[in-house]
Amino acid sequence: MASYKEKKLFTPGPLCCSRSVKEAMLHDVGSRDVNFVNCVRYIRKTLLEVAQVSAEEFTAVPLQGSGTYSVEAVINTTSPRQGAKVLILSNGAYGRRMNSICSWAGIEAIFQEFPEDKKIDLSAVESLVKGSVQYTTICVVHSETSSGVVNPIREIGQLVRQFQPNAAYVVDAMSSFGAVPIDMKTCHIDYLVSSANKCLEGVPGFAYAICRTQHLLSCKGNCRVYSLDLVDQYLNLEATGQFRFTPPTHTMLAFQRALEEYQKSGGLEGRAGRYRTNRRILKEGMKDLGFKELLDDSHEGYIITSYFFPKHPKFCFSTFYSKLSELDQVIYPGKVTKADCFRIGNIGYLFPEDMEHLLKCVRQVLGDMGLQVPLDA
Amino acid sequence: MASYKEKKLFTPGPLCCSRSVKEAMLHDVGSRDVNFVNCVRYIRKTLLEVAQVSAEEFTAVPLQGSGTYSVEAVINTTSPRQGAKVLILSNGAYGRRMNSICSWAGIEAIFQEFPEDKKIDLSAVESLVKGSVQYTTICVVHSETSSGVVNPIREIGQLVRQFQPNAAYVVDAMSSFGAVPIDMKTCHIDYLVSSANKCLEGVPGFAYAICRTQHLLSCKGNCRVYSLDLVDQYLNLEATGQFRFTPPTHTMLAFQRALEEYQKSGGLEGRAGRYRTNRRILKEGMKDLGFKELLDDSHEGYIITSYFFPKHPKFCFSTFYSKLSELDQVIYPGKVTKADCFRIGNIGYLFPEDMEHLLKCVRQVLGDMGLQVPLDA
Repeated sequence: MASYKEKKLFTPGPLCCSRSVKEAMLHDVGSRDVNFVNCVRYIRKTLLEVAQVSAEEFTAVPLQGSGTYSVEAVINTTSPRQGAKVLILSNGAYGRRMNSICSWAGIEAIFQEFPEDKKIDLSAVESLVKGSVQYTTICVVHSETSSGVVNPIREIGQLVRQFQPNAAYVVDAMSSFGAVPIDMKTCHIDYLVSSANKCLEGVPGFAYAICRTQHLLSCKGNCRVYSLDLVDQYLNLEATGQFRFTPPTHTMLAFQRALEEYQKSGGLEGRAGRYRTNRRILKEGMKDLGFKELLDDSHEGYIITSYFFPKHPKFCFSTFYSKLSELDQVIYPGKVTKADCFRIGNIGYLFPEDMEHLLKCVRQVLGDMGLQVPLDA
Repeated sequence: MASYKEKKLFTPGPLCCSRSVKEAMLHDVGSRDVNFVNCVRYIRKTLLEVAQVSAEEFTAVPLQGSGTYSVEAVINTTSPRQGAKVLILSNGAYGRRMNSICSWAGIEAIFQEFPEDKKIDLSAVESLVKGSVQYTTICVVHSETSSGVVNPIREIGQLVRQFQPNAAYVVDAMSSFGAVPIDMKTCHIDYLVSSANKCLEGVPGFAYAICRTQHLLSCKGNCRVYSLDLVDQYLNLEATGQFRFTPPTHTMLAFQRALEEYQKSGGLEGRAGRYRTNRRILKEGMKDLGFKELLDDSHEGYIITSYFFPKHPKFCFSTFYSKLSELDQVIYPGKVTKADCFRIGNIGYLFPEDMEHLLKCVRQVLGDMGLQVPLDA
């Protein structure tokens, strides 16, 4: 029988979650049974509370699959079968992924690419949305996991609302929701997408969209994908409390538990506080070791950090990665196109002592590899 | 904190799995880490062994989401963007679901409906496939979970191969794979779809298609859904050993364990043997209580059984269901359109003593409801 060692995941997900969240999965429940229906109801209600929106205006729609499935569901559901025009404001891999979604579906998309190591430029956005083209959907990623850049979704939202009043404003808040404050109202967000397995610290298996209900209802009949039809999913959940197709019951029990723990540990403030501390320890420690960050000091994101590979002939990322993994520390490869980077995440069930320990291991591995610290990066 | 009682699930899924399968989920693993890559490799390899096909001819492609997602992925991936014509042979809810998939996607489908309480009629199939219309995909459900009917997929496959040599033959074997023998070769199956959470007794969260590799590769560029593109998923798994998007890592660790237990307990023969015994005990016991089955004695399926509601004014299904659930026995509502039925599943981590206990509980609940046994159904 296969066995697995406990490792600390400094990744953007799957990430570490508490033992008790995982233990919540030790139960088999029927998907139509009242207890599970209550679990789904609790999750949907609590997600609206985390988003600080009212159940009169918004609804939370969970959907089986990874976060990308929910992004695809929102894009496909908000795009009319005729005349859809999607504007994608992108500065990283997750923006590009939205473009692939449109391209696969044959949905017309204007794909506007920005530099990966900077926030999306507002004046460029303004000229785009001010033009004569009317978009049906405008999408942006909040915290670009590929780099760590946090985009100005509020200012973008205000431009969208001012110049494109009929467009659905879609924010992929996959790796920020629950730990970075988002005011759905002043951001004018119509659809916010996130996953069970990010800052709310559940296990992977489903994602969700927090949707402006009235807009969602106006999208009936749009979706070309039965499994990903958010309207159909919503109507069924409202009518029966049940999913249309088998839900990942164990994953949802874990998420219920994760939400309970989230609220008990101070909600957004508690979570943001812990991640900010993690980030500060990492930032200082990696600086002391001589690593250089991809982003300059104007970036205040605390979800994930990209580091340049040290410019030293003895540095080999795959060795660095493997040796850290042998010490039970799992980091992540980079995902920007123009620079060689790796990434370290601060999210998940990680505490200051975990960050301190990681730094010790990084120092040890660099020594093993024959690199002197501080690096001359 | 929410807490859950242990209940026995006599349902088609989510169903009961062993304690050790659930305990396999007590680990957080990185999706790019070598251990997890090995887990995915083990799962893909073992699924081919369960299907008794060679890795030269077939490939197993797991996909996040419920079983329906994988069915949709196969239909969408095998349908060219121009000129697709899908023939759906249906005698139940899961056949109708395939029709919804085509209708949502705007894929031309010929939907041939057969009576829900009978096997699909081969002479009707023969005249359909003999005609001048060339189909790109022909789909059928093996064990129709809505009724319990097991369709003649071998005879259908032989007709498909004879008269529609270019069509992809797709079998939804969701609730039969691993417990009902399927000879992929003599059935001429090109795509077989099943889920982690059926006869292989994993937890829900992903499904998979066992695909004839050469046909799959001929489908590049067809799929209109990025998340559900089986070719893209396959190519990425082959190239990197990794999923394109965050996989449900915990669910997959559970499935690895479930496959290990499946092989240890005698593989298909062991599983079929246990389910057949479950079915025999159920059949005899329910007959003694006076329940009537939807299907006549020519049906030999042992996955799930549909029972007519007793024709007694005191019988109310929701009371019957709730009282059984209070006794920790979860049954399932019916899903045929023309008759009032409920269903009892034999699959999952259920043993003869569980079936005996269920029967005792049914007897007790009938008594509580004021119905005399044997019923005059």
